[in-house]
Amino acid sequence: MKSAMHLVSQTLLMGPGPSNVSEGVMRALGRPTIGHLDPRFIAVMDEVTSMLRTLFGTENELTIPLSGTGSAGMEACFVNLIEPGDRVLILQNGVFGVRMADVAARLGAEVDVVEFEWGRPVTVARAEEALFGADYRLVGIVHAETSTGVKNPVQEIGNLVRETGALYLVDTVTSLGGIPVDVDQWAADAVYSGTQKCLSCPPGLAPAAFSARAQAVLRHRSSKVPNWYLDLSLLSSYWEGAKRAYHHTAPINMVYALHAALSGLLEEGVEEVHARHCDAHNYLSDQLEKLNLDLFVEPGARLPMLNAVAIPSGVDDAAVRSRLLSDFGIEIGAGLGPLAGKIWRIGLMGHTARRANVDRLIAALGKLL
Amino acid sequence: MKSAMHLVSQTLLMGPGPSNVSEGVMRALGRPTIGHLDPRFIAVMDEVTSMLRTLFGTENELTIPLSGTGSAGMEACFVNLIEPGDRVLILQNGVFGVRMADVAARLGAEVDVVEFEWGRPVTVARAEEALFGADYRLVGIVHAETSTGVKNPVQEIGNLVRETGALYLVDTVTSLGGIPVDVDQWAADAVYSGTQKCLSCPPGLAPAAFSARAQAVLRHRSSKVPNWYLDLSLLSSYWEGAKRAYHHTAPINMVYALHAALSGLLEEGVEEVHARHCDAHNYLSDQLEKLNLDLFVEPGARLPMLNAVAIPSGVDDAAVRSRLLSDFGIEIGAGLGPLAGKIWRIGLMGHTARRANVDRLIAALGKLL
Repeated sequence: MKSAMHLVSQTLLMGPGPSNVSEGVMRALGRPTIGHLDPRFIAVMDEVTSMLRTLFGTENELTIPLSGTGSAGMEACFVNLIEPGDRVLILQNGVFGVRMADVAARLGAEVDVVEFEWGRPVTVARAEEALFGADYRLVGIVHAETSTGVKNPVQEIGNLVRETGALYLVDTVTSLGGIPVDVDQWAADAVYSGTQKCLSCPPGLAPAAFSARAQAVLRHRSSKVPNWYLDLSLLSSYWEGAKRAYHHTAPINMVYALHAALSGLLEEGVEEVHARHCDAHNYLSDQLEKLNLDLFVEPGARLPMLNAVAIPSGVDDAAVRSRLLSDFGIEIGAGLGPLAGKIWRIGLMGHTARRANVDRLIAALGKLL
Repeated sequence: MKSAMHLVSQTLLMGPGPSNVSEGVMRALGRPTIGHLDPRFIAVMDEVTSMLRTLFGTENELTIPLSGTGSAGMEACFVNLIEPGDRVLILQNGVFGVRMADVAARLGAEVDVVEFEWGRPVTVARAEEALFGADYRLVGIVHAETSTGVKNPVQEIGNLVRETGALYLVDTVTSLGGIPVDVDQWAADAVYSGTQKCLSCPPGLAPAAFSARAQAVLRHRSSKVPNWYLDLSLLSSYWEGAKRAYHHTAPINMVYALHAALSGLLEEGVEEVHARHCDAHNYLSDQLEKLNLDLFVEPGARLPMLNAVAIPSGVDDAAVRSRLLSDFGIEIGAGLGPLAGKIWRIGLMGHTARRANVDRLIAALGKLL
């Protein structure tokens, strides 16, 4: 029987995620499926939440992988913490900030947005003005904007949000495992991430952490969370405590894979992994210069794991990406929204963040340009 | 480093799901991760949706695996098709009917419930009375109640629902791949399933199908779907059409596994697979008799893949299940809710539905009882 599965082959994943998965993680993914209430699986779950706390830099008890991709993490944060009529402020400079505003508005929030230019970081001064301009229930920001390659000043913004009394929500989908994430130090009340970026796991889970303040807001809601699947009070009865209550059947094998990814990362050392991302980024930056390619983001705001490259005029964006994939087995990402056709997004995430991969890409780009 | 992953070992999964995963599906799960917009992955997606249509017995264009477990499928059906104030009728005879009512109420629906005794099927007469008693937007029922082992008469109910003009929602989580599912013949407008039951895939995806009528309701909503992650209009732009729009990063490797599971099932033959479930069930039924164990459900309403067994008086429910797992490597399920301590749930799902597995279980039970 002819099947499209035969076309699937090892590809160098240098786009905005998924990134390449290590052999160890793949082996874990293929371990025998066992029951979601099996004591052995619960032991695996407990190690996963413990390792996630370390990586998130948090002591938050409610630190769990949600059973969906990163966007389910975003959904979970808003649907649990927001009720209709709540005022929400989104500091927005890319696709994922736009998505935050959409998610919140769908849930009946009164959403204010401060827009910053795509490709530039959120500035503390403009954010401060907005933050104190109204009584917000929640302020949302993206740490690492995957759509532009920009790092936002989440610590500085966090210091201000704390003064206002609002809940502080930070998207760490692309940052976690690539640059320092310090949830408790930022005073972030809700953070979520994805497995397929710097954790180098297949996509499918959304690690998330919620502060005691966030949990208190959840407990004092005036209405039930309008999303049974992502209701944190139900999920915590499965992920925490002495007696685990069935909620939904956890994605067993994906949890194995996340366990292996986190173990590998902690074994290599969090600082060492961050340094490896930084080194690969610096190396890529140097090599791009040799091809006369410019990074789109100003030096101080660049993400090491997501490098936006300005597409030179006269170059056929889609044709280059397509040939990179078909002739060289390398995936890079296209620009999104207003940046479509203007930038490529070169990922150096997790397992993929190595000089040898940069060399392969640069050699291929050299032939194509 | 000591790790709980070392405890994970091959287990005979004869509970309410997950079921055992075949080697072929595990191999597919471990194929190299590629990008979610890679043309090769889109070809895999297209084959998955085509095979799902065959298995669901539907020509519905919008037939896709949702990026969450079976419960996310339930959530998706309600959140897309229901708006606050809509009247919903749930025909309820187990945990999953209770869950349906909870999900719908959280979304602001006016929910009426017709309760039937747990362990007995929904009856057409009482359902009919309720169906025509009010103007319902949607009627929900569970085809195979995993909590009790009861099969509900979804065809007969479907004939009546069609007359009322309501949307017809059927939970096929446990039935799909084990007994005939005929979505178009039932005139079902929305169905969802899970991968970890009779499809013998790891948990993580929710195959679902939506009729043209359901899609029309979706198009004419007065408000946006209050769940960005599960918004079908956004999801269909990724799963359908000539140009695929990024929504969220699909769980790539889980889609591979589902592809392999569906390919294997269709290769063996849908009728043959159903017959194998039936045979394993009849064999189990005979063997249980030899141990003086009784099935809890009346013969005509029994599910082949989920066998509720009355726990003999004087037997320690938890101790037997615990020893089955620790000493014999076999998982069976506990009763839920009012049936806790009263029944065991013995699954014969997908790959697990074979006489040899029944023999192993019966031998172990024989030693323990």
